[in-house]
Amino acid sequence: MFENAQRTEISTLGEFGLISHLTKNFELVNNTNLGVGDDAAVISPTPGYKTVISTDMLVEGVHFDLSYFPMKHLGYKAVVANLSDIYAMNAKPKQITVSIALSSRFSLEAVEELYAGIQMACKNYQVDLIGGDTSTAKQGLTISITAIGEAKEEDLSFRNGAKVNELLVVSGDLGGAYCGYQFLEREKRVYLDNPSVQPDLSGYDYIIERQLKPEARKDIIAILETLNIHPTSMMDISDGLASECFHLAKSSNVGITIYEEKIPIDPTTYNFARELDLDPTMCALSGGEDYELLFTIKQEDFSKLEHHADFSIIGFVTDSNEGMNMISKGGNKHPLQAQGWTAF
Amino acid sequence: MFENAQRTEISTLGEFGLISHLTKNFELVNNTNLGVGDDAAVISPTPGYKTVISTDMLVEGVHFDLSYFPMKHLGYKAVVANLSDIYAMNAKPKQITVSIALSSRFSLEAVEELYAGIQMACKNYQVDLIGGDTSTAKQGLTISITAIGEAKEEDLSFRNGAKVNELLVVSGDLGGAYCGYQFLEREKRVYLDNPSVQPDLSGYDYIIERQLKPEARKDIIAILETLNIHPTSMMDISDGLASECFHLAKSSNVGITIYEEKIPIDPTTYNFARELDLDPTMCALSGGEDYELLFTIKQEDFSKLEHHADFSIIGFVTDSNEGMNMISKGGNKHPLQAQGWTAF
Repeated sequence: MFENAQRTEISTLGEFGLISHLTKNFELVNNTNLGVGDDAAVISPTPGYKTVISTDMLVEGVHFDLSYFPMKHLGYKAVVANLSDIYAMNAKPKQITVSIALSSRFSLEAVEELYAGIQMACKNYQVDLIGGDTSTAKQGLTISITAIGEAKEEDLSFRNGAKVNELLVVSGDLGGAYCGYQFLEREKRVYLDNPSVQPDLSGYDYIIERQLKPEARKDIIAILETLNIHPTSMMDISDGLASECFHLAKSSNVGITIYEEKIPIDPTTYNFARELDLDPTMCALSGGEDYELLFTIKQEDFSKLEHHADFSIIGFVTDSNEGMNMISKGGNKHPLQAQGWTAF
Repeated sequence: MFENAQRTEISTLGEFGLISHLTKNFELVNNTNLGVGDDAAVISPTPGYKTVISTDMLVEGVHFDLSYFPMKHLGYKAVVANLSDIYAMNAKPKQITVSIALSSRFSLEAVEELYAGIQMACKNYQVDLIGGDTSTAKQGLTISITAIGEAKEEDLSFRNGAKVNELLVVSGDLGGAYCGYQFLEREKRVYLDNPSVQPDLSGYDYIIERQLKPEARKDIIAILETLNIHPTSMMDISDGLASECFHLAKSSNVGITIYEEKIPIDPTTYNFARELDLDPTMCALSGGEDYELLFTIKQEDFSKLEHHADFSIIGFVTDSNEGMNMISKGGNKHPLQAQGWTAF
């Protein structure tokens, strides 16, 4: 589905020409002294702040399917996924590096689209692109991004800080990105069966956007600061709620109980899951890529979040002996299953 | 040529199990507060220092050939190549992140070898592995490393600081890694023609080591500090001397003249180049991966380096109008050609 009217071979620019061509319009807005163009970039850490670093690799055919994923959206999402990890530390991202390896199948115009998405994410999240690498590959497209952020030591939230009786909170809603993925896969099969059928996307915009143009919850970090809430533990939800609950519980050496009815699911997600005969709760528990934040707060902070539309209090922290549980809508207690999406 | 007696499938561990298995024996020796295991790593920048960041991506079939490149050496070299970029800023590396994407062709034992090499490099250069990502790929092996270092602002050396009449200096010797590559490619062809022929490596150890186990010039940075020399510009030689001279000259808006007879070439490199009917000077000018340092110094620092075995003063900086030149052994002036190795 992805086409270019014009096709320029990347080899016409050469490696150094390509990097400078792709990055020439990026602005530096943070504490970056030197961006792309030397052996290394130089940044000025804010005095008294910690530096926070995260990295991710995305592989075509494993993490994304270019038959329905536009290059621009892919660039945007690749950055967002990394920034999400920085926000998950209750920190603020400042810089990224982007490395790509790609086969000769990709034109310069395709790579420009990828970088247009990267640039849009840099602009929306106010981060500087400070370095990277470009290389040929025998096959496919691989993207590796490293994000660098900052926080005061006392503001950082780790996975290991959850304590018994604290409340478990999630931002936004869950399962949408997974349902968007299922929707796009279905439309792809329809298209492959009969290329003359145009996909009807109306009514599914929300889940498609959750998959193709997710956002990192920069706003949540700001709201928590305004509400004067310091999450006792936090992580982002990239592999599905259940899997992340297991990580959080294991790191903090606690148990977790969640209420099925409290898991936030958007109506579009719910209806599409039903259309496919999927359990919406399972989509939220095991579908990935929502990039929402999962965190624990002290009981005394309950009233600050109770009626806030961006947050759902979905459970509580227990002693580790109680293990991982979900109270179903019918009121029964079931062991929680971790079935997060895994690349292996 | 690379074989394992035992083969364990990576899928038996899962993604998170794999990361924790591979990184469990890595020690943190620097200003790292939190390494692998959370959404992001946390480091404490040294007050008053700048943070320096570089990143590289290595792709099987483009940057390395596993038919003669042992996984352990590959891990070592991948780290070294990144650290070299940090030293090239006259900075000291402190941390790295490592991401890999690999096909199911690779066993757990193979990946353990890769990480054994990464760990050895971390130990030798005293850097902390603080994060990374592992993913499947449809084909091959891709490695992406980001290195983080530190320097005082006044110590940093950039590419753009060279001034007319300054001296151009190179560490170590050049062309060895390229000749090692040519040697290994030749032995590979011999082996493919007749697998019963055992390669005779004797006498070629130096160039093989330059290719398979290069080192970053940590020692040079220390020597320059001891000699109280601040390079006015500096970069590492990863793509060949000529290409790097062009980068340095362009960034500094100057010209460069080098003397062919001053280019340091090891006898093993020289003899092997002759054996292949290659011009040893061309191997030094256009062969890559030597990871030596190229830098400029003020004339007044000449005597400090003049008789130092680790350095060769190979030329001088001119006005940009004079362009890029090489004085041949016969005393003739030729335009310098940039034919650095390029991945496109």
